[in-house]
Amino acid sequence: MTVRTSTSVSALDGDLSAFGGASADLLHHVRASAPLVQCITNAVVTGFTANVLLATGASPAMCDIPDEAGVLAGVAGGLLVNLGTPTAEQRHAALEAVETAAGTETPWVLDPVAVGMLPVRTALAVRLRDASPTIIRGNASEILALAGAGGGGKGVDAIDSTEAAAYVAADLATRTRAVVAVSGPVDLITDGTRTVRVANGHEWLTKVTGGGCALGALMAAFASTTDDALTAAVAATLTHTIAAEDAAAASKGPGSFAVALLDALHALTPGQLAERARLS
Amino acid sequence: MTVRTSTSVSALDGDLSAFGGASADLLHHVRASAPLVQCITNAVVTGFTANVLLATGASPAMCDIPDEAGVLAGVAGGLLVNLGTPTAEQRHAALEAVETAAGTETPWVLDPVAVGMLPVRTALAVRLRDASPTIIRGNASEILALAGAGGGGKGVDAIDSTEAAAYVAADLATRTRAVVAVSGPVDLITDGTRTVRVANGHEWLTKVTGGGCALGALMAAFASTTDDALTAAVAATLTHTIAAEDAAAASKGPGSFAVALLDALHALTPGQLAERARLS
Amino acid sequence: MTVRTSTSVSALDGDLSAFGGASADLLHHVRASAPLVQCITNAVVTGFTANVLLATGASPAMCDIPDEAGVLAGVAGGLLVNLGTPTAEQRHAALEAVETAAGTETPWVLDPVAVGMLPVRTALAVRLRDASPTIIRGNASEILALAGAGGGGKGVDAIDSTEAAAYVAADLATRTRAVVAVSGPVDLITDGTRTVRVANGHEWLTKVTGGGCALGALMAAFASTTDDALTAAVAATLTHTIAAEDAAAASKGPGSFAVALLDALHALTPGQLAERARLS
Repeated sequence: MTVRTSTSVSALDGDLSAFGGASADLLHHVRASAPLVQCITNAVVTGFTANVLLATGASPAMCDIPDEAGVLAGVAGGLLVNLGTPTAEQRHAALEAVETAAGTETPWVLDPVAVGMLPVRTALAVRLRDASPTIIRGNASEILALAGAGGGGKGVDAIDSTEAAAYVAADLATRTRAVVAVSGPVDLITDGTRTVRVANGHEWLTKVTGGGCALGALMAAFASTTDDALTAAVAATLTHTIAAEDAAAASKGPGSFAVALLDALHALTPGQLAERARLS
Repeated sequence: MTVRTSTSVSALDGDLSAFGGASADLLHHVRASAPLVQCITNAVVTGFTANVLLATGASPAMCDIPDEAGVLAGVAGGLLVNLGTPTAEQRHAALEAVETAAGTETPWVLDPVAVGMLPVRTALAVRLRDASPTIIRGNASEILALAGAGGGGKGVDAIDSTEAAAYVAADLATRTRAVVAVSGPVDLITDGTRTVRVANGHEWLTKVTGGGCALGALMAAFASTTDDALTAAVAATLTHTIAAEDAAAASKGPGSFAVALLDALHALTPGQLAERARLS
Repeated sequence: MTVRTSTSVSALDGDLSAFGGASADLLHHVRASAPLVQCITNAVVTGFTANVLLATGASPAMCDIPDEAGVLAGVAGGLLVNLGTPTAEQRHAALEAVETAAGTETPWVLDPVAVGMLPVRTALAVRLRDASPTIIRGNASEILALAGAGGGGKGVDAIDSTEAAAYVAADLATRTRAVVAVSGPVDLITDGTRTVRVANGHEWLTKVTGGGCALGALMAAFASTTDDALTAAVAATLTHTIAAEDAAAASKGPGSFAVALLDALHALTPGQLAERARLS
C-alpha cells in the first residue's frame, strides 16, 4: 500500500520563481511515488478525474461508500472531497473519510461545487470547511459562498471574478488554516499570507466538464508529496494549466481538447513546469 | 443566475423550410443566453451529456438529489429527466423537480429510457408522462411502451421502427399536450397536429452510448429559449444530427466519432442548420 | 429481446492454437447476435464500458437497481457484476441479478475490484464468489484476496504478479467451478485444469481507467455465445488486448489511446484474432 512520503520540497522561503522549480520537483515526486489518491467526487467527472490522475502519474481510488471511505482514507496519500452530486452515501462517506484523515494526517482537498443556493451540499460544505481541509478549491463564486460572503454560484460556472474573491480567499485561508485556490482566467492561490497567481491555461478548460474537479484531484496528489500545501496547490495548478496549453495547440475543439489534455499530462516534463510557469 | 428569456422564434405558421431558419435562430439564442440546463440523468452518460451541452453553448448542472433538485428546477432554463439508471434518490429528485417546474413553467424533457419491461422506471415514467412534460423523447420502442401500446424496449436500442410509432406518437402528443420526438434513422417529431421528420444524422450515433440521452438534454436547452416546443425539438435534433454528419466525416470509428461530435457541436454555425436541414 | 444462442464453438479438446480460431468464431457470433449484456458496474467506468461493448458489437444495458436488475438478468445474454463503487442499491441489485441468473443459466462475470482491505465489497465478493459465477476476473492482488490467500489490493492496480497468482487462481477455479482470469502484462486464464496465457496487450491499458472493468464486460458478452467459458474468456481477452495493440500504434498518449481503443475494437476482424494471438 502506498503511503505518503513527504519530501522537503517547498517554496516557503523563496521568491516567486522558486515555485516553478519546486513544482517541477513535486511532479517528479508524484511520478516516482504514484500516490494513492482517494476521490469522493461527482458522477459527472469520476472517469475523467481518474484518467487525469493516471495520466499524471498518480493512482486513483474512487472509494466513496460508508464503512469503506474511512478505511481507505487512513492509507491513501491524499483525499479529494468534491460535492458536485452529493448522494446520501457520499455525504456520509465524506464525513467518515475526513474524520480518519484528521487522525492519520492525510492531506485532503475540499471542492465545494455549486455551494450557496443548493442547501444539502452547502450545509455539508460548511461542516467540511470547519474540519481542517488542507486545501479548499473552487471558482470565485464558490469561494465567496463558502466564506459566507457571497450569494451562491451558478452551478460550476464562475460568475464572480477571481480578483474580487482575493481578499475573501485570504481571509478564508487564515480562518481555516487551509490553502485556498480560486480558479479563473488567472488562478489565485493563497495561504492567507502569501498569494500566488498562475496565468497559464486555456479557455477551453471551461468548455469541458470536470476541468476544475480534476484539478482538485491533482492538488490531493501533489499534497501527498509535501507538507507545504501552498506549493502543492501551485504545482498542481501549473501541471493542469500548462498541459492545457499543449492540449489546445493539438486539438480542434473541446472534444479533442479533453483527450489531448490527458496526452499532454502524460507527456509533460518537470522541466517544462519550471520554464513555462507564468506566476505573479 | 440564468433565467429563461423566451424568444418569439417559432415555425408555427411556416412551411417545413421555416423550421430550418427558426432552428438557426434558436441555436444563436442558446449560445447568447447559455441557458442553465438541469439534468437528472443516468450514470452512464452524465459526463458526455454535460460535454454536449457545453460544446453547444449551454450550461449544464447535473443536480439530482432530493431537497436540491426542486430548488434548481425553479431557476433553471430547462430540465431533463432521463430514466436510464434511476436510483431511489434520483426518482425522488425527479418528482420534486417536475413539481417545481410546473409552478415556474420551466420547460422539461422526459426521456423514458428502456421503459416497458423494467418495472421501477416504468411506474415512474407513467407518473412523469402525466405531469405535463414539455417534450417526450425516446426511440420507437420506448414511445410505444410509454403510450401503453408496446411491449417494451430492449434497453436503449430501438427494435420498433420510427414510422410504426408515428400514429402512436401523435396520439401520445395529443393526450399529454407534449411534443413527442421519436429517434431513429429518420427522427419523427410531432405535437399531435404537425409532424416533422429529420433525415440528418449518421449510424455511428447508435454505436456511442448516450447519443439519444444527450439529444434530450439539448432539447431542454433549446426549449429554454422559446415557447414553441415543436421548433425547439426540431432545432435540437438538427443540431445533434448535422454535427454527427460532420463528426463522422472527421473520424475513424465510434471512439473518435464521439470526440469529433463535441468538436462539431462547438464549430456548428446557425447558418449550417438552415442550409443542411433535411426535413419532410 | 435478445436471448442467448449458445454456439458449439469451443477449444475444449484442441491445442493452444485452437483458441485463436475459436476466438475468431466467437467474435463473429458476438457481432451477429449483438448480445444484451447487463452491467452492474462502478460509476467511474460505466460510460467507457458501454462504449467498449457497443464498439465490439454487443448491446449494453447498465441496469443496476433493485427490482429491475433481476428482471433484466432473466433475459440478458450475459451479466457483469463489478464491485468498483458498490452502493447499497447496487449491492442489492447484484444479489438479485445473480439469483435470477442461477435460475435462467445466464452466464455472469464477477470482477471483485479492490477486495481485501475494503470490508463492504469484500463481504459481498465472498457471497458472490460462492454463488457460482461463470468467470471471475481480476488482477493478481484481487484474485489472491478473493481466494483468501492475499492481503488485499491497492485499489485496482495490481501489486502481486500474475504468475505468483497462478496456483491460487487454478485452485480458486477448481473450488468455484468458475473460469478465473488474472490480468497482468501476460494474462492468465484457467479453469483449474487447463491454463492459457495471453501475451498480447499494451502498457497504456494500465494508464486508462476501466480497462480491466471493460474486459469483464466483454467476457460476459462472449460467454453469452458459448457454453465453454474458458474459450469465452480467452476470446474476450484477445479481442481487448489485440485492439489495444492497434490503439497504441494510432495514439500519442493515454487520452488518445482510450479513444483509439474503441475505434480498434470496432475495426477488429475475427481473422486478426486468430492470426495475432500470442498464447502459451
